[in-house]
Amino acid sequence: MEREGLFRKISMENEKKMVMLVLDGLGGLPLAGKTELETARTPNLDLLAAESELGLSHPISPGVTPGSGPAHLSLFGYDPLKYEIGRGILEALGVGIEVGPRSVAARGNFATLENDLISDRRAGRIPTARNREIIARLREKIQRIEDVEIGLYPGEEHRFVLVLTADGLDDRLSDADPEAVGKPPLPARAKCEAAAKTERIVNLFVDRLTSELAGRPPANTCLLRGFAKYPAIPAMSELFKLKAASIAVYPMYKGLARLVGMDILETGRTIEDQVATLKRHYAEFDFFFVHVKKTDSFGEDGDFARKVAVIEEFDRWLPEILELTPEVLVVTGDHSTPALLKGHSWHPNPVLLKSAFQRRMPVPGGRLDAMACGAPEGQACAKVTVSTPGITFGETACARGLLGTFPAMDVLPLMMANALKFKKYGA
Amino acid sequence: MEREGLFRKISMENEKKMVMLVLDGLGGLPLAGKTELETARTPNLDLLAAESELGLSHPISPGVTPGSGPAHLSLFGYDPLKYEIGRGILEALGVGIEVGPRSVAARGNFATLENDLISDRRAGRIPTARNREIIARLREKIQRIEDVEIGLYPGEEHRFVLVLTADGLDDRLSDADPEAVGKPPLPARAKCEAAAKTERIVNLFVDRLTSELAGRPPANTCLLRGFAKYPAIPAMSELFKLKAASIAVYPMYKGLARLVGMDILETGRTIEDQVATLKRHYAEFDFFFVHVKKTDSFGEDGDFARKVAVIEEFDRWLPEILELTPEVLVVTGDHSTPALLKGHSWHPNPVLLKSAFQRRMPVPGGRLDAMACGAPEGQACAKVTVSTPGITFGETACARGLLGTFPAMDVLPLMMANALKFKKYGA
Repeated sequence: MEREGLFRKISMENEKKMVMLVLDGLGGLPLAGKTELETARTPNLDLLAAESELGLSHPISPGVTPGSGPAHLSLFGYDPLKYEIGRGILEALGVGIEVGPRSVAARGNFATLENDLISDRRAGRIPTARNREIIARLREKIQRIEDVEIGLYPGEEHRFVLVLTADGLDDRLSDADPEAVGKPPLPARAKCEAAAKTERIVNLFVDRLTSELAGRPPANTCLLRGFAKYPAIPAMSELFKLKAASIAVYPMYKGLARLVGMDILETGRTIEDQVATLKRHYAEFDFFFVHVKKTDSFGEDGDFARKVAVIEEFDRWLPEILELTPEVLVVTGDHSTPALLKGHSWHPNPVLLKSAFQRRMPVPGGRLDAMACGAPEGQACAKVTVSTPGITFGETACARGLLGTFPAMDVLPLMMANALKFKKYGA
Repeated sequence: MEREGLFRKISMENEKKMVMLVLDGLGGLPLAGKTELETARTPNLDLLAAESELGLSHPISPGVTPGSGPAHLSLFGYDPLKYEIGRGILEALGVGIEVGPRSVAARGNFATLENDLISDRRAGRIPTARNREIIARLREKIQRIEDVEIGLYPGEEHRFVLVLTADGLDDRLSDADPEAVGKPPLPARAKCEAAAKTERIVNLFVDRLTSELAGRPPANTCLLRGFAKYPAIPAMSELFKLKAASIAVYPMYKGLARLVGMDILETGRTIEDQVATLKRHYAEFDFFFVHVKKTDSFGEDGDFARKVAVIEEFDRWLPEILELTPEVLVVTGDHSTPALLKGHSWHPNPVLLKSAFQRRMPVPGGRLDAMACGAPEGQACAKVTVSTPGITFGETACARGLLGTFPAMDVLPLMMANALKFKKYGA
């Protein structure tokens, strides 16, 4: 029996609540001996860590740095090498477009054509406002080619998304991009018979767009890359029998959650807003994916201090989430984004898992530190010190944690088990 | 996407250097509480360990004891269960024969035939010198059968290697060996149509050899086992885009390195010679596999003290390797060979990985212990004590290491990642 068949067979519904708190790019590398997470003052996370099981998780496999797509598939319990999320689809998710099963999406660049040669692959990085004007104009002019609906969506600067919708489209197409300046435009080429229609439409589209923009440099043609159809991924409701909701701010993460069939809850832009949304909808779902983006953003900027600050802000809101007393709580990242590397990395994610059925058990009715702080046994301690001396939720503590180091796609199954949502396999 | 497809897709060249130091059979079992590696006085390895990430690796999977072939495939980043290196090929590699894709190799034993029954499967373990004489004589007498070239190579005592070379040969053949004394010789049998020619040639060869040796007991016939073709393994240059070189003394390890397309650097027999070879060729390659054999040899002999001594000798040469400042350095074994077991074992390998992008970071320009020993921050400490009290590079420290316990085939991908030779997977 393979993995997904197993989950379909053993998963079952119950009323227990699971909350997965994902700080994007959480894992880091040390500066002066401590990572971003270890540097952050996180009294609430540290206290929680002392009562939880800790571990490290590999998003894909040791040494492999993931993009956001495969990293989130893993967190949602899917084998990230089984499902490929094409570039075009990810771009569409990133600008918040819903793409159906009949559509092919591609990433577009406005570019500059001079004397029939591409002279700038980014059209001088035109302002986003200009991009919006051009797209608005093109939307009026090119609505359909043959029976194919043309969808056009502006991105930042020179970027846009093209979505073709009709029956009989196929994404096995080479990029319509010479990938260098000083070369003529390169038409897309079908890699198989089935993509012939898509090839024809794509190349007609580039011609139409180029004649519409003639005489209006620098954005007077386009390049198209990463043709992709929507991947057929079984929903979390099928695989895990979960009623799952996402509380994410950025379109790409909403899109990734929608890929696996989650409900998308509208929320504001701050962690405070996200916590309020979680409280408001807490009764309606049994799995919540809460996505905090800024840890990754500051990691990508190489800004150690501001990544630390986001983690500290998150920590301040943690007690409000704990007050909901979900049966299973996970705090983790999708991948590491060390400020030192200014980008995603291969280093495994810190994982914290809290449930009633873990090997590290809280003192009944109180805190692990109850005895250490002098309070009578079984009573809560007022102080925020913990009995495990100096425990700090971070990569080092997680590397020594009871959960060990394991694939990130096993985090959700572990949550399911701890929520008693998995039946016994075999008799 | 499967593992090798992933590596092909994400690997890229850069100028960074990676050195993998393999002490064959390094891992051990304790005598008086400490393993061979923990018993050895290794100040240089201990200091390096305090600045490195440590872990344990399983050559195949937990509980499985590997031979040298699969253990090295793992270290080179290949799935050891995907590629089978047949016994005949391993024997050929062991005596330093290059085997081409048209050849089938087999392991031979000289044996004794009396009254048409096998009376000794090893011909009384004839001296190696006698073996060489017989092989020399047979080489003159049997050079070709039909269109098949016959290659004969002496091994130790009664062992030899047979290499058949022609078009249309196949290795799906049962052994020509009754596997017991008191039985008649057993002809090889083709397991499929395609091996019919090989079956005929093999059995003709045994007849020819037996008539050539008639009247010269005890070596008057032969047994043949482990028919095997050269496995088709993609080169490291394809899979990882590496320019890889091996610095090994023994033929089998040169052969295993050649299997994955490494350049074989000629070197002397001591660790000192190997270090000199590494220095001489350092500019020419970006991956070096340095193989130290004697740790395994003394483990196989059950000689705890001499295995310890080889580790200590290696430790004395380590600083010269460190002076080359490779961007990524690994010290590990291919499998464990505990003196206690006098043979290979299933215990996972100690792994030490040093790079600039590890979670345990050295103080810039100095040692982790700089502050602990009182030297100003950022300056090297003169003392050899380290800030982690009592760290000893060994199995216990590795079991608690930040890398965790993982498959040995992930060591090379981890090195690739730390050398920034892997691109991000997915967007």
